Amino acid sequence: MIPIRALLFDVFGTVVDWRTSIIAEGEALGARHGIFVEWDRFADRWRAMYQPAMEQVRSGARPWTVLDVLHRESLDKLLKEFGIADLDEAARDHFNRAWHRLRPWPDAVEGLRRMKSRHIIATCSNGNVALIVNMAKHAGLPWDMVLGAEVTRHYKPQPEAYLESARLLGLEPAECCMVAAHNGDLVAAGALGFATAFVPRPTEYGPEQDFNLVAENAYSYVARDFIELARIIHQPKSGPVAI
Amino acid sequence: MIPIRALLFDVFGTVVDWRTSIIAEGEALGARHGIFVEWDRFADRWRAMYQPAMEQVRSGARPWTVLDVLHRESLDKLLKEFGIADLDEAARDHFNRAWHRLRPWPDAVEGLRRMKSRHIIATCSNGNVALIVNMAKHAGLPWDMVLGAEVTRHYKPQPEAYLESARLLGLEPAECCMVAAHNGDLVAAGALGFATAFVPRPTEYGPEQDFNLVAENAYSYVARDFIELARIIHQPKSGPVAI
Repeated sequence: MIPIRALLFDVFGTVVDWRTSIIAEGEALGARHGIFVEWDRFADRWRAMYQPAMEQVRSGARPWTVLDVLHRESLDKLLKEFGIADLDEAARDHFNRAWHRLRPWPDAVEGLRRMKSRHIIATCSNGNVALIVNMAKHAGLPWDMVLGAEVTRHYKPQPEAYLESARLLGLEPAECCMVAAHNGDLVAAGALGFATAFVPRPTEYGPEQDFNLVAENAYSYVARDFIELARIIHQPKSGPVAI
Repeated sequence: MIPIRALLFDVFGTVVDWRTSIIAEGEALGARHGIFVEWDRFADRWRAMYQPAMEQVRSGARPWTVLDVLHRESLDKLLKEFGIADLDEAARDHFNRAWHRLRPWPDAVEGLRRMKSRHIIATCSNGNVALIVNMAKHAGLPWDMVLGAEVTRHYKPQPEAYLESARLLGLEPAECCMVAAHNGDLVAAGALGFATAFVPRPTEYGPEQDFNLVAENAYSYVARDFIELARIIHQPKSGPVAI
């Protein structure tokens, strides 16, 4: 068994709770500007536009474009859809940067701190560098390095996003463990030879989430949260966890 | 005056003491393998091959090549030059990675920790990502992000190495301060609109160093060490320091 040197983390949903954060930011915006909409629906619609926007880049239909720009284009469409198109530029920009201010799940910072003591901990997210760095400063996420989409110029689950992230660390895929709350992300990384760790976030998509609730495949590790993952991953003799 | 959001650090010589670290690694290698050479001369020769090697890449004479590879090519030549060409692959690789294990100047870790509390602190070094990340883990350097040569595919002092590093943080050059012990690095960054901070490291090149001893130009800040720099940079009202 090859020792794992680096843990690569999906961020949106796995490390931070984007949905309740965006809802709270929307409510604050609404209070400032006298806007009354269903912010949970707004948050869900904004996130629903995420994959189609990235797919335009993945498919080559448009050149490399960072997530901040994709988020902003989606936001401008949504503001129109929700009838609040008169919001000024400063307010739009601030709201778009809500993605830079997402709040971590309660176990995330402490779990990462523990994992950092023995492993390289890096992001492998579709967020751009500025977004992930600002989020880290805001939330106290102690990353050693920000990898993933922008530095590799590929959006997950394209293989280059994972492979080039490992290569930048000077590591083989098998020396890296992808950590995510999403089965699809882990299937993609696992197919490339990465170790895999599933941590469920059963309310990421709200109280009625009915997918990504359990590990749907055999992963290297499965843990309830980052505290348990730190404990499991620091026991190299335990080997892969059976599902 | 635009507030500074990020501090970008030169690393070799500014943050870590490469010369005494390489000498110590050489002495340890010599003790293990029964090799007796003047390791200070070896360290100086290795470092002297650094700029010419990068110049091959800057000029376009060879494609993008990371510093680990350039260091290794120089090492292989030097081992021949010093009559120790029979060193095996594992020993060569370990010695080449001495650059991943360089020791920080005594004030560096504490100074960075203080600066990190209020600013983004990132490297803007010619070292590749794996080298800088491994060095950070080894020495406890609390970087928020590793920028510079590899992620921009340009070696300093080429403008792209600085400009693209700022762009990845979503910042204008004027929102970033380049910190270095080398006048040349600061002149290059300053010409692009970056704020500049000079911290002298008068023994970087050994006891007889006769250059980069003082700030040779008007920089935004000049500090004796990183502790003083943290203090000065956290007093926004003090403005640029006169030389």
